[in-house]
Amino acid sequence: MSVKGLVKRKDDFSKWYNDLVAKADLAEHSDVRGCMIIKPYGYAIWEKIKDQLDKMFKATGHQNAYFPLFIPKSYLSKEADHVEGFAKECAVVTHYRLKNSDDGSGVVVDPNAKLEEELIVRPTSETIIWNTYKKWIQSYRDLPILVNQWANVVRWEMRTRLFLRTSEFLWQEGHTAHSTKQEAIDETETMLNVYAKFVEEFMAIPVIKGLKTVNERFAGAEETYCIEALMQDGKALQAGTSHFLGQNFAKAFDVTFADKNGNKDFVWATSWGVSTRLMGALIMTHSDDHGLVLPPKLAPIQVVIVPIYKSKDQLAQISEFACSLVQELKNSGVSVKFDDDDNKKPGWKFAEYEMKGVPLRISIGPRDMANNTVELARRDTLSKEIISQDIISKTIPSLLDKIQVDLFSRSKSFLKDNLRFAKSIDEMNDILEIKGGFIEAFWDGETKTELKIKELTKATIRCIPEGNQEMGKCILTGKSDSRKVIFARAY
Amino acid sequence: MSVKGLVKRKDDFSKWYNDLVAKADLAEHSDVRGCMIIKPYGYAIWEKIKDQLDKMFKATGHQNAYFPLFIPKSYLSKEADHVEGFAKECAVVTHYRLKNSDDGSGVVVDPNAKLEEELIVRPTSETIIWNTYKKWIQSYRDLPILVNQWANVVRWEMRTRLFLRTSEFLWQEGHTAHSTKQEAIDETETMLNVYAKFVEEFMAIPVIKGLKTVNERFAGAEETYCIEALMQDGKALQAGTSHFLGQNFAKAFDVTFADKNGNKDFVWATSWGVSTRLMGALIMTHSDDHGLVLPPKLAPIQVVIVPIYKSKDQLAQISEFACSLVQELKNSGVSVKFDDDDNKKPGWKFAEYEMKGVPLRISIGPRDMANNTVELARRDTLSKEIISQDIISKTIPSLLDKIQVDLFSRSKSFLKDNLRFAKSIDEMNDILEIKGGFIEAFWDGETKTELKIKELTKATIRCIPEGNQEMGKCILTGKSDSRKVIFARAY
Repeated sequence: MSVKGLVKRKDDFSKWYNDLVAKADLAEHSDVRGCMIIKPYGYAIWEKIKDQLDKMFKATGHQNAYFPLFIPKSYLSKEADHVEGFAKECAVVTHYRLKNSDDGSGVVVDPNAKLEEELIVRPTSETIIWNTYKKWIQSYRDLPILVNQWANVVRWEMRTRLFLRTSEFLWQEGHTAHSTKQEAIDETETMLNVYAKFVEEFMAIPVIKGLKTVNERFAGAEETYCIEALMQDGKALQAGTSHFLGQNFAKAFDVTFADKNGNKDFVWATSWGVSTRLMGALIMTHSDDHGLVLPPKLAPIQVVIVPIYKSKDQLAQISEFACSLVQELKNSGVSVKFDDDDNKKPGWKFAEYEMKGVPLRISIGPRDMANNTVELARRDTLSKEIISQDIISKTIPSLLDKIQVDLFSRSKSFLKDNLRFAKSIDEMNDILEIKGGFIEAFWDGETKTELKIKELTKATIRCIPEGNQEMGKCILTGKSDSRKVIFARAY
Repeated sequence: MSVKGLVKRKDDFSKWYNDLVAKADLAEHSDVRGCMIIKPYGYAIWEKIKDQLDKMFKATGHQNAYFPLFIPKSYLSKEADHVEGFAKECAVVTHYRLKNSDDGSGVVVDPNAKLEEELIVRPTSETIIWNTYKKWIQSYRDLPILVNQWANVVRWEMRTRLFLRTSEFLWQEGHTAHSTKQEAIDETETMLNVYAKFVEEFMAIPVIKGLKTVNERFAGAEETYCIEALMQDGKALQAGTSHFLGQNFAKAFDVTFADKNGNKDFVWATSWGVSTRLMGALIMTHSDDHGLVLPPKLAPIQVVIVPIYKSKDQLAQISEFACSLVQELKNSGVSVKFDDDDNKKPGWKFAEYEMKGVPLRISIGPRDMANNTVELARRDTLSKEIISQDIISKTIPSLLDKIQVDLFSRSKSFLKDNLRFAKSIDEMNDILEIKGGFIEAFWDGETKTELKIKELTKATIRCIPEGNQEMGKCILTGKSDSRKVIFARAY
C-alpha cells in the first residue's frame, strides 16, 4: 500500500475516486459481475453510518423487521407504474437444486428442480411487504405500522462503480402504513428530515431538500422527496429519497382498514431509503489528493498515535506515555489507535493514515518526550502544531468537534459557491462545461421540456427545492409562471 | 391476539412452538416457500443477540466485512468435500432481466438475458471468500485475517419450521486465515468458547461443548467443534459450530503465503457461525404454557408497567408516579414500557406481556397509590409480591440479574437431570422413548456403527464431549477402547 499512484483530482476525478477506494482499503470488485466486496475498513465506516441512522429511526418510533430476499415474479406486475418504471434488470432464480455432473467434473443445475414460478431477488421490497401488510392490517388500531429493514438488494447493472452503482448493494428501506393521507405525508417529510439531519450533522455534507419531478419519481410513488448533495467535481449525487406512495400499493395488494366508524378505506403508504451509495458521497465530498478525509463522527479511528524512535528504550518511554494517553482518550469516548508496529517506518504510517482519513495524528519522538510535547496533525487541513503533553488529552475531543464543524463549513461554502443561476440554455451549458455545480433555472413543469433540456445539456432536474415559490420564464420554452428548480449533471 | 389457543407443551410440543412463535409476534411464514418474515418483536430479540455477539467478536479482534450474495457455480466444485457434502439444495440464478409479456398481462423472464454461468445464492461463503483471500494474502505479514460477515444465506428446504429450518435465514459467518495450524486451531476453539459463553451468559442456555464425528462434520472441515443444547421436549439442538478447515480451502483456491524465511505454504483456515436458529433454542428452552419467557439480557422490554384505574383522575395519579419510575429505570439502563393504552383492559395486557415474555410486570392501582406500593410479578416464576414504591426502582436491576441467573440454573438442572448413561441399544431406546434428553454411551469410532445406531434409535452423535477421556465397550459392537460420546434425537 503506497500513497504513490493516487492521481490528482483535477487531472482525473474518476480515476482518483477508484484509486482512493482501493488504496484506502474500502472496497473492491468481486469476480461476480457487478457485486462488490466491502473490506473491513470500508465496512467499519458503513457500520457507523448504519448505527447512527438506526438510532435516529428508532428515536422517531420505527422498528426493524426482516422480509424475504425473494419476490414471486407475479408480485412485481401488481402495481402497474412500479413494474413499468422498474424491476426489469433483476436477478431471476429459476431452479432450486444442483447435482453432480455425469462426467464428475463438477456441478450442474438439476433440470428437474425448476420452480413453478420464478423468484426475483428483491430490487426493493414494496411488493412483498405490502403483500404481508395485508395480513397485518384490519383496523385503524393496527396503524400506523412503522417498519424498517436493513438488507441487501440486487439491481442488475452493466456498468458498475464501487459504492455508486453496484448490482448488489446494502441499504435500509422503511415501509410505513397509515390511516390518513396527511399522516403518510408527514411521515415522508419526517424521514426526509432525518436523512438531511444525518447527512449534514454526521457526514458533514450539506444537502438541498426538495421534490422530484414526475419524470424522476420512484415507480409507484405519488411524490418523491429527495436530498441532493454536490460532489467536488461539480456533479450532483442523490443521497436519499423518501416516497409518499399514496394508496397505490394498498390498492395493488388490496390492503384496507376499518376506520373508527367501521368504514373501509385503503391504507396510505410511504417508503424511504439510503444505501451504501452514501459511502461514495462521503468519499467524494471531503477527500483530497492525499487520500480519504473522514468527518470525526464517522471515522472508525479518530486519533492515531505514531511513535518515532531509534532505540527500544526510546520506544518504551514513548509507549508508557502513549498507553496512558490512549486510556484517557478512550475514557472520553475517543476511538484511538497506538501504532507501534516495528515493521513499518513512521513515514509509511503517516502516509497510510492520511490515505485512510484518520482525523488526527499524534506523533511522539524522543525530543517530544524531553520537551513534554507531542506533534498534533489535522488530516483535513494538513496543519501541524506542537502541544504540551499535559493538555493533549483534553484538547482532542473539542478539536474533533471543531474538525467536524469545519468540514461541514467547507463543504457548505463549496455548495454555496457552486449554486448558480442560468437564464438560458447556453448559459447553463457554459456553467456546466466550465464549473459544473447546481444550476437554478426556471422550468415550465412539462416533462417534454425537462427531457429536451436534458438532451441539450446532459443535466437533469435534481429537485424542486423546498419552500421555493419563485416564478419566472422557462429557460427552454419561455413560458411564464415557471418554477425555479435545480439542475445538475449527476451520478 | 389472545392467550387462548396456546396448546400445552406436554400435549403437543411442536404445535405449542408454532403457536407461540405466532402469538408472541415473533415471525411468520411468507408466501415465498420456505422464507420467513421476522416480525418487529422477534427481530428486536435477534438484534440483541446480534449486538452482543458482535461486541464479543470485536473484543476478540475480529472485523466485519461484506462479500457478494452470489457465487459462480464453478466455485462450489473447487473443494471436493465441500461440494460433495453440501451445496445441492441451492437457489440458482440463471437470468438477469425481465421484460413485459407480449400480451401485456405482466412480466416474463427475458430469454435473451441468460447468464453465461449460473450464479448460486450463497448457502455459506467459504468459496467466494477464499477466492478473495487469494488476492489479500501474499506474506505472513498479511496474516491473520480475522473477518466476520452478518448476512442472509439460502439453503432450499422442503419442510420448514420458523427459525429452526428455513430456506433463507440470517446468520454470521466468521472466516479467518492463519499462518500456522496451531493458530487456526486456537482460533476455532476461541470462537467455540465465545459462542458457549454467549449462549450460557446471555441466552441462559447451558451447552455441551465437543467435536462432531467425521460423519457429522461440516463439508470441507478437518474438525467441527460444536455446542449442543437441550430443549424442553428432550431433543437436542446444535446451537453453533466452529470449523477448523485445515488447508483445504487454501488448496482449492490456491492461497499461499511466504513465511519469514520466504518459504511458501498454504494458508490455514477456520469458519464459524450461528444463525437465527438461536431464536428457536431461546424459545424452546425457557418458555411455558403461558407464552414466551425471555432472559432479561435479551428482552427488548425488561419491565412493563400496567396502570389499573377506573377514572381519569386515578390514571393521572398513577401516570405521574409511573413516568418518574420509567425515568429512574431508564437511568439505570433498564428497558421499560409504560402501557397506558386506554383501549385495552389490564387483564388483556397481563396476558399479552406474559405471551411476549417480558421478565417483570409492575401493576399499579388506586389502592397501591394509597398504600405507596406496587404489585411486582415475575414472568419466569409467575410469582407476585407487593413492594413499596420507595424501593421499587432500586429493586428492579438486581431482580433482573437474579432472573437471569435463575433461568440459567433452571435450564442447567434440566440438562443435568436429562443426561443419562445407556449401556445398551435397548436401554438407549427406552430412555429416548420415555424421557428423551442426552444419552452418554460408548461408541467404537466407526461411521458404520454410528449410522447403524442412528437407524436403530433415531439418535445421532451430538458430540464427542470436551475433556472426556473415558473409555468402555461400544454400545453396538461391544468393541472395547470405545469413547464415551453424547447421543440424542435432534432438531
